Amino acid sequence: MRIGLITGGGDCPGLNAAIRAVVKHAENSYGHSVVGFRHGWKGLAEGAAQPMSRNDVRNVLPLGGTLLGTARYHPDWDGAGMAAVAASIEEEKISALICIGGDGSLSAAARVAAETGINVVGIPKTIDNDVVMTDSTIGFDTAVNIATEAVDRLHTTAESHNRVMVLEVMGRSAGWLAVMAGIAGGAEIVLAPEAPFDMDRVERFLKHRHRARKSFSIVVVAEGAHPAKGTLDYEVAYGKHGELIAGSVGSVVAREIEQRTGFETRLTVLGHVQRGGSPLPTDRILGSRFGVAAVDAIQQGRSNVMTAKRGMDIELVDLAEVEGKVKHVPEDLLRTANALA
Amino acid sequence: MRIGLITGGGDCPGLNAAIRAVVKHAENSYGHSVVGFRHGWKGLAEGAAQPMSRNDVRNVLPLGGTLLGTARYHPDWDGAGMAAVAASIEEEKISALICIGGDGSLSAAARVAAETGINVVGIPKTIDNDVVMTDSTIGFDTAVNIATEAVDRLHTTAESHNRVMVLEVMGRSAGWLAVMAGIAGGAEIVLAPEAPFDMDRVERFLKHRHRARKSFSIVVVAEGAHPAKGTLDYEVAYGKHGELIAGSVGSVVAREIEQRTGFETRLTVLGHVQRGGSPLPTDRILGSRFGVAAVDAIQQGRSNVMTAKRGMDIELVDLAEVEGKVKHVPEDLLRTANALA
Amino acid sequence: MRIGLITGGGDCPGLNAAIRAVVKHAENSYGHSVVGFRHGWKGLAEGAAQPMSRNDVRNVLPLGGTLLGTARYHPDWDGAGMAAVAASIEEEKISALICIGGDGSLSAAARVAAETGINVVGIPKTIDNDVVMTDSTIGFDTAVNIATEAVDRLHTTAESHNRVMVLEVMGRSAGWLAVMAGIAGGAEIVLAPEAPFDMDRVERFLKHRHRARKSFSIVVVAEGAHPAKGTLDYEVAYGKHGELIAGSVGSVVAREIEQRTGFETRLTVLGHVQRGGSPLPTDRILGSRFGVAAVDAIQQGRSNVMTAKRGMDIELVDLAEVEGKVKHVPEDLLRTANALA
Amino acid sequence: MRIGLITGGGDCPGLNAAIRAVVKHAENSYGHSVVGFRHGWKGLAEGAAQPMSRNDVRNVLPLGGTLLGTARYHPDWDGAGMAAVAASIEEEKISALICIGGDGSLSAAARVAAETGINVVGIPKTIDNDVVMTDSTIGFDTAVNIATEAVDRLHTTAESHNRVMVLEVMGRSAGWLAVMAGIAGGAEIVLAPEAPFDMDRVERFLKHRHRARKSFSIVVVAEGAHPAKGTLDYEVAYGKHGELIAGSVGSVVAREIEQRTGFETRLTVLGHVQRGGSPLPTDRILGSRFGVAAVDAIQQGRSNVMTAKRGMDIELVDLAEVEGKVKHVPEDLLRTANALA
Repeated sequence: MRIGLITGGGDCPGLNAAIRAVVKHAENSYGHSVVGFRHGWKGLAEGAAQPMSRNDVRNVLPLGGTLLGTARYHPDWDGAGMAAVAASIEEEKISALICIGGDGSLSAAARVAAETGINVVGIPKTIDNDVVMTDSTIGFDTAVNIATEAVDRLHTTAESHNRVMVLEVMGRSAGWLAVMAGIAGGAEIVLAPEAPFDMDRVERFLKHRHRARKSFSIVVVAEGAHPAKGTLDYEVAYGKHGELIAGSVGSVVAREIEQRTGFETRLTVLGHVQRGGSPLPTDRILGSRFGVAAVDAIQQGRSNVMTAKRGMDIELVDLAEVEGKVKHVPEDLLRTANALA
Repeated sequence: MRIGLITGGGDCPGLNAAIRAVVKHAENSYGHSVVGFRHGWKGLAEGAAQPMSRNDVRNVLPLGGTLLGTARYHPDWDGAGMAAVAASIEEEKISALICIGGDGSLSAAARVAAETGINVVGIPKTIDNDVVMTDSTIGFDTAVNIATEAVDRLHTTAESHNRVMVLEVMGRSAGWLAVMAGIAGGAEIVLAPEAPFDMDRVERFLKHRHRARKSFSIVVVAEGAHPAKGTLDYEVAYGKHGELIAGSVGSVVAREIEQRTGFETRLTVLGHVQRGGSPLPTDRILGSRFGVAAVDAIQQGRSNVMTAKRGMDIELVDLAEVEGKVKHVPEDLLRTANALA
Repeated sequence: MRIGLITGGGDCPGLNAAIRAVVKHAENSYGHSVVGFRHGWKGLAEGAAQPMSRNDVRNVLPLGGTLLGTARYHPDWDGAGMAAVAASIEEEKISALICIGGDGSLSAAARVAAETGINVVGIPKTIDNDVVMTDSTIGFDTAVNIATEAVDRLHTTAESHNRVMVLEVMGRSAGWLAVMAGIAGGAEIVLAPEAPFDMDRVERFLKHRHRARKSFSIVVVAEGAHPAKGTLDYEVAYGKHGELIAGSVGSVVAREIEQRTGFETRLTVLGHVQRGGSPLPTDRILGSRFGVAAVDAIQQGRSNVMTAKRGMDIELVDLAEVEGKVKHVPEDLLRTANALA
Repeated sequence: MRIGLITGGGDCPGLNAAIRAVVKHAENSYGHSVVGFRHGWKGLAEGAAQPMSRNDVRNVLPLGGTLLGTARYHPDWDGAGMAAVAASIEEEKISALICIGGDGSLSAAARVAAETGINVVGIPKTIDNDVVMTDSTIGFDTAVNIATEAVDRLHTTAESHNRVMVLEVMGRSAGWLAVMAGIAGGAEIVLAPEAPFDMDRVERFLKHRHRARKSFSIVVVAEGAHPAKGTLDYEVAYGKHGELIAGSVGSVVAREIEQRTGFETRLTVLGHVQRGGSPLPTDRILGSRFGVAAVDAIQQGRSNVMTAKRGMDIELVDLAEVEGKVKHVPEDLLRTANALA
């Protein structure tokens, strides 16, 4: 059997562990061959095939990024896109496809399964950790570690200089990274999309804290955090459609804090370093287990499923239950972040 | 209310996060005060009380070890031990006790609850990850990271020198550390207590691999791994009671490999560094969540329970279901380790 | 003898090693006592004295920042500042002052020595590494490591996505951080203040590279890098006084690259994380050796000197030779950076 | 011109940076080609040639070990060895040889230069840092970092358990690693070959410390440290030729401490992990600069020289001045280690 393999969407640490597991397990355990396509759906549509054997996946466990390349591009499914993908699949004699990606890529996978009739298995990855039906996604733990390192570093500077340090991390729809790094780093305030913030409360909290005890604070802000309507001169910062008019939410928060409290405040936008670097063991292991499970699923003739971590186990869940949903940070984690501030 | 707090057994990264969470959550959310006892059960028996406020737990999230100290000592429960513990509890007016520890300490906690009648809540910690009813224990992820770093480091040396590198890691009853570090680091062979090994198979595998492809290999051995009876001149290496006669299992394995294959072989015993150092975010978060949950349990009048990670949630499980059991590495993880060798 | 001690200017990793060495060596070897002042010159002017014994410097080697706090504030030397500093010195019976700081603080130290007559010894620290007469300054190696980690992380993302990644690092007057992180991380282009850049050459280089071989590149830019006059529509980006009109030099470079080449380009401004976190051994050792040497210098009655690393040795150099000068990256390092692109 | 390149002796982090720099600088700047030989002198004698272009050195900066492999084997120079090496050199039309190695390999290089008449340039590498005429060698800083991490990790465990932790690190002839890691990690005692130790003094120091203040201690021991004659029942531990009779010096020290003081004592032998893993920026930069300087030296027709770090510069020194000498830790560093205990 020839199994197709792509990585789609933003890159993250642990993808190579999954690629390696797919290639080695398919070859060692079942004698199947694996054909990668470069740069995700784009490469699949363009026929950028790259046959892979276990020699191609040597020594890749410690490496970030993806051997196969990726792209944020999706085929124009309603135009020529699906036809091109179907042609590639036929050309390369692919009888099953493993797609490692986030929500967008997994939806596309379901669509390709429906249109072409081949079996498709998804493997969830995103540093945002916002895919439902799985406890965790490839890349998340490593990104939390990078963000926590940043909080630790800002902490010593904040304390040395009596400053408020604002750190903006990724997380457009869900605040997993901000909340986890906030708890792990001991941030005083965490702002996440799950709980619209009130700048008046932030101001009161900081003034109280600096009056009573400490002269520094760390504020972690998810890029998708936003004020509750009716607060923070919402109209000034946001346009008609809720889009930030100027800069990022982090810059709005930092500016407001400095103006309202008079405390010296500095902003750091962590940016692209959050998705790079060598994966932590947990991401290498998750990628490896997902890769093995995906090949097993293919072997069992399963389709339209996604590998998922549930407790200590790896299970298969229906792609249909995953599409279009967002896994939000649960209430108890938000409370833990606040309880320890 | 005054809550007693101890850390027992071997130290590990993440204990301070749990201590901090207990102290801050008890104080901030419920107005309870916390009294720590130094050096575990020993300190409790000796009345080594140390009242703790949130000032005592500042900046401790990145620190390994335990602020409170620990000891492997257990009271002589059938002699004066229980009376001394009970006296300390009365002296300090403790009405509930939170015990952070491994299997031994948690059993002791249950016993103290039974004898003294105070409420007792356990928090599981061990780098061995062998406590049942919880997906994970404080300290495990950081230890896996340290062991994986060692595998990564040995890997470049093994490849540069065409050597077999044997790494012995902790894990007396269960092979979690060995298996996880083996998968994450891409070890060729992992020997765990769950699967008694056959040195003849190890020999054949290595000879085949070095003939066919590669001239180096990594072997990760849990300290509790052992050969199947009837193999490896079992009588030579092991005494009547299954105890190693000379050195560690790692040294036996390394010696056998070199003698049987003629490949240059080196042993590294990772030792005490496995339980030290700054905790990874996952251990800081687990410690924080367990600490919060333990205080909540105390507040709700619960006793004889242990905080447990189940999927994405923190739950309470009965201590009675935990005592005397060992959480073994499941079959599918062992297979994953082998499938990717 | 009572020795005064301050840390001035921006904080950086390794300051605590120097503070610890001053306190322990003064106390253990000579029986002197040490009085720290909080928040640099500000605290000295305000009399914010904090007597320090070796108990105060326990376990501080792995900690970033400064125990004593710091501030960018300098006394108004021509107004009441010098009088206030002199009063503090008399009040606390300080007979010698050790000042850990960058160029500004070291100049202030010389001035205080001249006005008050007490002996003053400087210890150079700055992540910019731009202090003359010393091979290296406290904090530099750790900052290079943080910047190199960022380059490594961006590298895997750049390669996975076929992007140009621009990383802006600190370095207003000298490009040490950019050049060192560029060499260590294998950046394709490094822009430093020492060599005004020509955007046309950058454009040609990238187009050539992406045509010939690779479809990604890393560009490291020091915040003080600037285009040669007459290039890059200098007037558009810079005002009359050579100040950037909008944003940082990194944002100008990233925008220009994307517009001129059409390659997808992303900017990361590393920011405050560069000065935080646990110091590398080299910075802990440099801080320790400088601290010991400063106390020895005080003991020998030296004044107006700075501790300096010269080859493998720690020596004393005259503060007068240091003031107002900038240590630039030498030509051969710039050539090495280019030769390996 | 065709330049031969080998790495000899034990592997260490930063070798790949040097290899990369040689290959890229030779090709980019001078149009020379580079022929590597696998596994050091052995491969050169056996003609294991491997032509290298810049494609072969992509993405190798973060990788430990050596792309070319290495071996501790030296040709039988008085037998067929030199003839075989000379034949390889002629066969591959090598007109100059760059040898990256420690003392042994550099001596061999000088011998090959003398016998074959080709130009030979050495690049010093060793985690022991014991090569004279250069401030530092490739691999040393990274090894210090690994050893310091171990000290940091043992520190939290020692303090939590009230133990003495003994750490044995590499360093047969010189104590650089032990002294640097001891200073950086804040060890209480450092035992190095440069200062034969007296177990009675160690005992007195530990008893005094534990009585007066602290109940834990860290002892760092270089593998080449040894007691002064006439002490520690020298005859019991050492044979006629000064060789350890049983185990390592670390095990002798740990056993003696526990027996003499009664303090719980644990030994960790760091072993092979010290030479593995991703190189720190300083080692990547040193390797890069040495590689560039070696190619420049070849281009200038120099021979029998070694690249050396002297202060901030890279210079060339005569191999004749390096051979057979050991760079010892200077007195002032030993004193710093003691002053801060």
